[in-house]
Amino acid sequence: MTSSPLTAYRASFLPALEDALREAVTPWQAHPAALLFDMVEHHFGWRDAAAKKGKRVRPFLLLLVHEAAGGRWQQALPAAVAVELIHNFSLIHDDIQDRSETRRGRPTVWARWGKAQAINAGDALFAQAFAVMAPLQEAFGPQRALEAMRVLAQACVALVQGQVLDLSFETRSAVTVEEYMTMIRGKTGALLAAAAEVGALLAGAEAQRREAFRRFGETLGLAFQVWDDYLGIWGDPAKTGKSAADDLIAGKKTLPVLYGLQQPESAFARRWREGPITPDEAPQVARDLAATGARTFVREQAARLTREALAALDAAQPLPRPGEALKALAQELLGRAM
Amino acid sequence: MTSSPLTAYRASFLPALEDALREAVTPWQAHPAALLFDMVEHHFGWRDAAAKKGKRVRPFLLLLVHEAAGGRWQQALPAAVAVELIHNFSLIHDDIQDRSETRRGRPTVWARWGKAQAINAGDALFAQAFAVMAPLQEAFGPQRALEAMRVLAQACVALVQGQVLDLSFETRSAVTVEEYMTMIRGKTGALLAAAAEVGALLAGAEAQRREAFRRFGETLGLAFQVWDDYLGIWGDPAKTGKSAADDLIAGKKTLPVLYGLQQPESAFARRWREGPITPDEAPQVARDLAATGARTFVREQAARLTREALAALDAAQPLPRPGEALKALAQELLGRAM
Repeated sequence: MTSSPLTAYRASFLPALEDALREAVTPWQAHPAALLFDMVEHHFGWRDAAAKKGKRVRPFLLLLVHEAAGGRWQQALPAAVAVELIHNFSLIHDDIQDRSETRRGRPTVWARWGKAQAINAGDALFAQAFAVMAPLQEAFGPQRALEAMRVLAQACVALVQGQVLDLSFETRSAVTVEEYMTMIRGKTGALLAAAAEVGALLAGAEAQRREAFRRFGETLGLAFQVWDDYLGIWGDPAKTGKSAADDLIAGKKTLPVLYGLQQPESAFARRWREGPITPDEAPQVARDLAATGARTFVREQAARLTREALAALDAAQPLPRPGEALKALAQELLGRAM
Repeated sequence: MTSSPLTAYRASFLPALEDALREAVTPWQAHPAALLFDMVEHHFGWRDAAAKKGKRVRPFLLLLVHEAAGGRWQQALPAAVAVELIHNFSLIHDDIQDRSETRRGRPTVWARWGKAQAINAGDALFAQAFAVMAPLQEAFGPQRALEAMRVLAQACVALVQGQVLDLSFETRSAVTVEEYMTMIRGKTGALLAAAAEVGALLAGAEAQRREAFRRFGETLGLAFQVWDDYLGIWGDPAKTGKSAADDLIAGKKTLPVLYGLQQPESAFARRWREGPITPDEAPQVARDLAATGARTFVREQAARLTREALAALDAAQPLPRPGEALKALAQELLGRAM
């Protein structure tokens, strides 16, 4: 039986990752503050085998890059766990900040346990991310373990800066395309960049190769976000699982909208300023938005970022089999943008 | 001119600490998300020279222990900064969780910028704490730097567990004295324990001495908290700056209250269950509480913890001059409990 490298790596990495992730927080269960465990168990979807889990893209990327740079994935598991803990800390806090009541078909942590305790759930995952990385020194020595922590800590600062910008956009009338790209570079790019960089640095990649892997992670994240913004308005509902023009109805200031608003006299901008868009109007508003050039612009940006990501991957000179899987992962994430 | 070692150490450590603390977050000012800098600048009281600052007890303890274990305080500054960043992350999140609108005479971060952005301010300080520790490797090597990070990360988990318990007490009718001690061991003890331990381990203290310094930090924190609970009810307003029985009026479930509630038929417990206590009644309720034995119990606990802290300090065999300052610091924090 042959399977693609991507499928094969998924089948070996993901179950081990899930176990390690769960192990990282299981000691909380025996503490008088076991509520902390209850909250994260619910959040991760571990309480019910049928519950929807996250896609684990960031830790999977870290492990794949580690292999692609010549490492052995099992040794890098603690770093992969740390990256996923950090991602989930940010999801739990984002849900509070955005007042989102459901995630993956379940009530969010704050919707179920209140905002105060949900803040604690996020904080505890964040702290645990740094606690679980110390054992990396056994396989990699203290220097590389410390460097991995530094890279992740700085990514967390960038992640929070992205989140600060994102929230500040909500209350501002004008946001430029450039500001938006700065925001997603923090909110989406920083942790993917760090995941790839840590995978490479733990494998002992030299500076240039490490930087190329980092750029791959970052541009992959940006390309994904821009493409997601495209699909949120012009995607095929049958393929994306969202209804077309969903983001317009939700009033989200995504990249195409910001592009369109740069032409304040366009039919799109005039309609946007009038207030919420109903599902009935949405197809026409999406056409008006395309008429500003936004659709072409966003497609081109997604295609450019995708090319940059693949060029960075080439420059990183991955080993053949994990390199093939990384390319397939990028194609899967970016779909038709390629 | 002669000054006490405590005064002399304060005069040399604290200005350098404040500079290093400010330096740790100054790069945020140049980022598009400069709001992050505005929030922490306000929180730390840096916007106005006359603003009340924190007492910086945790980083000061770290630096003093570092000297007492044979180190040079300047080298340990990044760790001291990290501890203070962590403490302030927890204050900013606590204020959201407790809905406290003022701190040190200023509006809290959430009261001024809203809960969503205040969560970000705390998160960013937390992340920065781990980012600033990497340079410790220059003076101490990567092994000790990594160990310092591990100890602080675990302290953060314990700190959050304490906060989870504290919030859960609010909505519970019965909380035992033991549960309360577990809570403050996390919320107050963990970071002071870690501050002392990191100061010692960076100085290269061997395991037993390092553990003794850690115990000193932890029991000092517990003694301080228990004594603070005492003063919140029976303190002398002229000395504490609070009015007597303040904590009774605020309805806080502190140690003496929990002790008194263990006697459900006492005059105190019966009155407590009836609802909020007015300032007029407070002196009588404080006398009723003392009649349960709570006053004696809490005094004895504070005295016992203080003895344990000083015994741990002895066992740590501090160098004479910083050792004298540590003892004086404990006396200052614990006042009449000694």
